[in-house]
Amino acid sequence: MKLVTFDEKGSQPGAVIGDTILALHKAQPFLPDSIEEILRRGLLPEVQNLVDNASELEREHFRPVRGTALYPPVSRPSKIICLGLNYEGHAREQKRDPPPHPILFAKAPSALSGPFDDIEIRSGVENVDAEAELAVVIGSTCAMIPADEALDYVAGYMVFNDVSARRIQREDRQWFRGKSFDTFAPCGPWLATPDEVGDPQRLAISQRLNGDTMQESNTAEMIFPIAEILSFVSAAMTLMPGDIIATGTPEGVGLFRDPPLFLKEGDIVEIEIERIGILRNRVTRVST
Amino acid sequence: MKLVTFDEKGSQPGAVIGDTILALHKAQPFLPDSIEEILRRGLLPEVQNLVDNASELEREHFRPVRGTALYPPVSRPSKIICLGLNYEGHAREQKRDPPPHPILFAKAPSALSGPFDDIEIRSGVENVDAEAELAVVIGSTCAMIPADEALDYVAGYMVFNDVSARRIQREDRQWFRGKSFDTFAPCGPWLATPDEVGDPQRLAISQRLNGDTMQESNTAEMIFPIAEILSFVSAAMTLMPGDIIATGTPEGVGLFRDPPLFLKEGDIVEIEIERIGILRNRVTRVST
Repeated sequence: MKLVTFDEKGSQPGAVIGDTILALHKAQPFLPDSIEEILRRGLLPEVQNLVDNASELEREHFRPVRGTALYPPVSRPSKIICLGLNYEGHAREQKRDPPPHPILFAKAPSALSGPFDDIEIRSGVENVDAEAELAVVIGSTCAMIPADEALDYVAGYMVFNDVSARRIQREDRQWFRGKSFDTFAPCGPWLATPDEVGDPQRLAISQRLNGDTMQESNTAEMIFPIAEILSFVSAAMTLMPGDIIATGTPEGVGLFRDPPLFLKEGDIVEIEIERIGILRNRVTRVST
Repeated sequence: MKLVTFDEKGSQPGAVIGDTILALHKAQPFLPDSIEEILRRGLLPEVQNLVDNASELEREHFRPVRGTALYPPVSRPSKIICLGLNYEGHAREQKRDPPPHPILFAKAPSALSGPFDDIEIRSGVENVDAEAELAVVIGSTCAMIPADEALDYVAGYMVFNDVSARRIQREDRQWFRGKSFDTFAPCGPWLATPDEVGDPQRLAISQRLNGDTMQESNTAEMIFPIAEILSFVSAAMTLMPGDIIATGTPEGVGLFRDPPLFLKEGDIVEIEIERIGILRNRVTRVST
């Protein structure tokens, strides 16, 4: 399934079927009004059942995908955990050795933004860069899980742009603030469940800036695969339904180009992952 | 007011009145069943009104403070933001210059722990240290607020222990993981509203380890006062009701002692802040 959060007098959970969105909560009022609550209450099988029988539902429960505003599929995760240096090429381009274990940092959930929303750069913020990443969304509470069971706790996958203010990252040394400005985490376009995605370690991933390819790699190139990441993270902290783990970015980011290439007003950033979909975000400058 | 989250067949919001806890949701069922939801819906005035008229309430709505288990006052913040290096003495003891602006990092909300719960150190985790901090809890959504209005967005204050696994902090360089193990954020004992606390920049703050004073300072010694911190943070990211901002720790932490002094099984860590209260947490080792 492809689960979206869409706008209809506030946010609503939906499932994409062909070129339509099935309004889940409207079609089946016992379903909660957010994807996170669906996950928390373990109701994905009920959603699947509804989708499987969508042909029996009234037409009023469907909207066209085209022209419908999409929000982040999950909007209130208890945490967003990101990985630094999880592709060898990205470690190489910054002349660093691949790390011996995943390097984690956090991004504020308030940075989440829809798949086609603007990336807003505030005045005084310089050297902003995009990072193409595959994000994992947790389906159920888990702690200290072994790697060979880890994928059982995955609700699905999203495309994720780990937008980064490089000067602040460097000055603070802690990456949290430079990565956490509002709108610095476009994601979606939907939460693609594992059956849609197949092997998550065999997906082409790319970033295009104004149509030019910036990053082009494959999730097979990750240093630490998803199962190991989840096992490693959950050895430290309990993961909750809706939590987002962004699995790192491949080589080609603007910071390490010669000369460096940063986002500017009017740029269009596209991040695409095979079998999931595409984010398309325009860059705007906002005065504060 | 002193607002607690206490255990009674699950968590409940309460207000401490003398040596009793008034069960808010039981006494006034229109009040939500968590402090965060009370904040989100702007219902603190209704809680204050109930507390002011507590003498008219039935005895069945009160429990003794003594013997009642307390949870973290807020348990599902959208983020916990911490400050590094916000007391000159703490910058000095690690031979670093005071920073030109607040240095932010995040702690996972899953680390939150009650005011008298055990600090659990997992096998393989070494060099664990405690940090006495004053935490601010946000009362209403805010972004880009000027410093001179910032305190209007504060719901109250808590004592906070920013427990830190030093070896992991050093190895990762990003502080998030070493600060985010489950149980590494004891807080409380209650959310003390601003009227309880008075000037938040004039509070004695101390840490005792097995009765010996480790840290002893005053919130007057902060490099960046709370109003400036809130203005600075909200310039980057929207703050939400229930969000926790821990304002940094004074000198005296175990890491920078000679020789260093780290937490061990059976230790008792107490953090106390004037006009708010005290946390008392025992250290245990857990095998994983």
